[in-house]
Amino acid sequence: MYEIKDTLIPIPDDSDFTLHNIPFGVMRRDHSQPVVATRIGNTAIDLHALAMNHLLDDTGTSPGVFRQPVLNPFIALGQPVWRAVRQRLIYLFSDPDSPLVSNHHLFSQIATPIHGVEMLMPLHVGDYTDFYSSLEHATNVGIMFRDASNPLLPNWKHIPVGYHGRSSSIVVSGTPVHRPNGQTNPDNSPSPVFGPSRQVDFELEMAFVTGISTRLGDSISTDDAEKAIFGMVLFNDLSARDIQKWEYVPLGPFLGKNFGSIVSPWVVTLDALEPFRVQGPPQDPSPLPYLQFTGKKSFDIHLEVAIKTPQGTETAVCRSNFRHLYWNMAQQLAHHTVNGCNINVGDLYGSGTISGHEAGSFGSMLELAWKETRPITLADGTSRTFLNDHDTVIIRGFAKTNGIRVGFGEAVTTILPAKPIAL
Amino acid sequence: MYEIKDTLIPIPDDSDFTLHNIPFGVMRRDHSQPVVATRIGNTAIDLHALAMNHLLDDTGTSPGVFRQPVLNPFIALGQPVWRAVRQRLIYLFSDPDSPLVSNHHLFSQIATPIHGVEMLMPLHVGDYTDFYSSLEHATNVGIMFRDASNPLLPNWKHIPVGYHGRSSSIVVSGTPVHRPNGQTNPDNSPSPVFGPSRQVDFELEMAFVTGISTRLGDSISTDDAEKAIFGMVLFNDLSARDIQKWEYVPLGPFLGKNFGSIVSPWVVTLDALEPFRVQGPPQDPSPLPYLQFTGKKSFDIHLEVAIKTPQGTETAVCRSNFRHLYWNMAQQLAHHTVNGCNINVGDLYGSGTISGHEAGSFGSMLELAWKETRPITLADGTSRTFLNDHDTVIIRGFAKTNGIRVGFGEAVTTILPAKPIAL
Repeated sequence: MYEIKDTLIPIPDDSDFTLHNIPFGVMRRDHSQPVVATRIGNTAIDLHALAMNHLLDDTGTSPGVFRQPVLNPFIALGQPVWRAVRQRLIYLFSDPDSPLVSNHHLFSQIATPIHGVEMLMPLHVGDYTDFYSSLEHATNVGIMFRDASNPLLPNWKHIPVGYHGRSSSIVVSGTPVHRPNGQTNPDNSPSPVFGPSRQVDFELEMAFVTGISTRLGDSISTDDAEKAIFGMVLFNDLSARDIQKWEYVPLGPFLGKNFGSIVSPWVVTLDALEPFRVQGPPQDPSPLPYLQFTGKKSFDIHLEVAIKTPQGTETAVCRSNFRHLYWNMAQQLAHHTVNGCNINVGDLYGSGTISGHEAGSFGSMLELAWKETRPITLADGTSRTFLNDHDTVIIRGFAKTNGIRVGFGEAVTTILPAKPIAL
Repeated sequence: MYEIKDTLIPIPDDSDFTLHNIPFGVMRRDHSQPVVATRIGNTAIDLHALAMNHLLDDTGTSPGVFRQPVLNPFIALGQPVWRAVRQRLIYLFSDPDSPLVSNHHLFSQIATPIHGVEMLMPLHVGDYTDFYSSLEHATNVGIMFRDASNPLLPNWKHIPVGYHGRSSSIVVSGTPVHRPNGQTNPDNSPSPVFGPSRQVDFELEMAFVTGISTRLGDSISTDDAEKAIFGMVLFNDLSARDIQKWEYVPLGPFLGKNFGSIVSPWVVTLDALEPFRVQGPPQDPSPLPYLQFTGKKSFDIHLEVAIKTPQGTETAVCRSNFRHLYWNMAQQLAHHTVNGCNINVGDLYGSGTISGHEAGSFGSMLELAWKETRPITLADGTSRTFLNDHDTVIIRGFAKTNGIRVGFGEAVTTILPAKPIAL
């Protein structure tokens, strides 16, 4: 690995986008063609322009792979190529012998202040799966809705429970989402009612992106799973609890979940997260052999959710950590494919809501306000049990160790009022 | 509509592919590029070759849209274009003044015997949704697994219950599928076991394909829903009942369903199904206003499932009809989008298992053999409660009225033995 020396681009203290990161995203400048980009500090770097200037030669790429509306063609080139490009970028922006040094003309072609670019949805998501891998979240939900003395279902500690979600409604950070209309049955009456959801919630999640495609019938072992993962993003799985509650038996969530899900724009590679590996929680009982694994398969990633009200004040309502998750990504992917289900480059896999042990670490309003019984007071003096119209939800995440910081930026959305339905 | 006179191509009695049909699919000849095609009798017609010979001029298409691996670009041109192309094809193959008459050279360029072409997966399915819209199927499942005296869940008659399925594992008819491996818990013991599923089942379904894309936040009314539908296919939603049973609470089916789902290769347009419109079953209680509709919104489509054993004998195990479905496609699509969920061209929507009232009309082995209590005897003398390795499942479907026949051909798959998993 190339040693990081200094940087050609100023990086603010506590920036998520250090030279240890080098994430990948898709941006647009001045309504021009979308291009693949990375971010260093508050500067966006145009990889297509770099490639056209022969600065990404011999990485296994051609310039065309960077002039694309999504990362998929780049990702499809494979792990050796992602790694070569990331290492080249670290070199270009930190080595005193870099051709970028003192070449102001070249530099101005490839670098743009981040506030001057539009970040686009970075992936074509063929299939999106959502897991349910936080023991604390599953326990909280079980206590609230099933049986406080026996909150976990019998399968939970044997299976990384997951289900298929909607790909089309996954949007990039910054996209507002309308409050959904739908059927609910608040009083368990014989007849449901129709109208805007009254229980719109966030779910603090992270998601990983696969970097390979497999054939129907193939499976991936826990040993090989991380090689199949390109990187990770922050993920807000917006949920309408009242719609979900009425619809979800027996086939799972549907309209309560598919009205908008938000990803952060920069995909952080597993390579960048390498320094932050940790052991996950102990698993008892031991899972079946195909779910067993060796090594540290979790990551110490600090997560935060803030709500910003229309008045502009912001309140951190949740602080959690990715390492709390009971099931790790290698187990999730091994489970997902053990039946021969095929995966594709760009598929997305949500972790499920990431809750910690304490009340302030719960990853949804449902849990934070404990089923509307403990309203959360915000900095502007108002209180919430779920989200109001015009509330903005901001998820942030970063990892830090030994002076190295790698972060994800933000996944942001604002809840807009419900739209009238077509009749 | 162009009046159908005679035909330039012989059409066998009881062919599904009359001039009233004109379905769309994607085929390949001799390892050449995939092209969009239609089928008349037992002849496949190359629409790209027709377009290159200017026989599809003024239909709103260009030849390039027919030299594609999927129908999506053609479908995206919109309903007026599908209709114009279908009408042109009817004219070309039935009018005495057709330029195809007596032009043997041209004819040989565009026509191929069906046995000489390879039919490909006709769609890029961005998102796949499966509904659960048969009252008889939901009732049978409820009797077997929940409460025989109260088999329907409270939401069933208010919501066209649906859930998201896996797009990647949808394959075209003729593709064999391996028996899935997975966790099951046959004895409700404290510990699950791992191995090949012992309860691999078919599900007799049909599916519709959307022909428009909407924006996040938009909804589609029942009045407008059929304009958004391009056509229909036969669909076999293979299910591993033992895997499904252990995994499905609380978030729905996952690995029990995503190891292979089979579509018929020819998409039959709603226009072709127009003569077969019927009223669906009465709906009591009346659904919420957004699910109410006017007119005949169901179709009289005869369906059959046959099992062919390795010895080559075939047994019809189920005869059902699409018209049995309680919820119609317009209601399904209105429900799906009422919360603002966006849809795309090529998305697929399964009906759910289509069971009728009598035992011989049940659309799955689970119901036909009533949870393994009533084995089905096949023509070769063997019996089944679920599918064996090397069994071939054939779904067929057609509509017929007043001498007009329009059919779907077949959705066929063979169950292969489980593959060893990666370790």
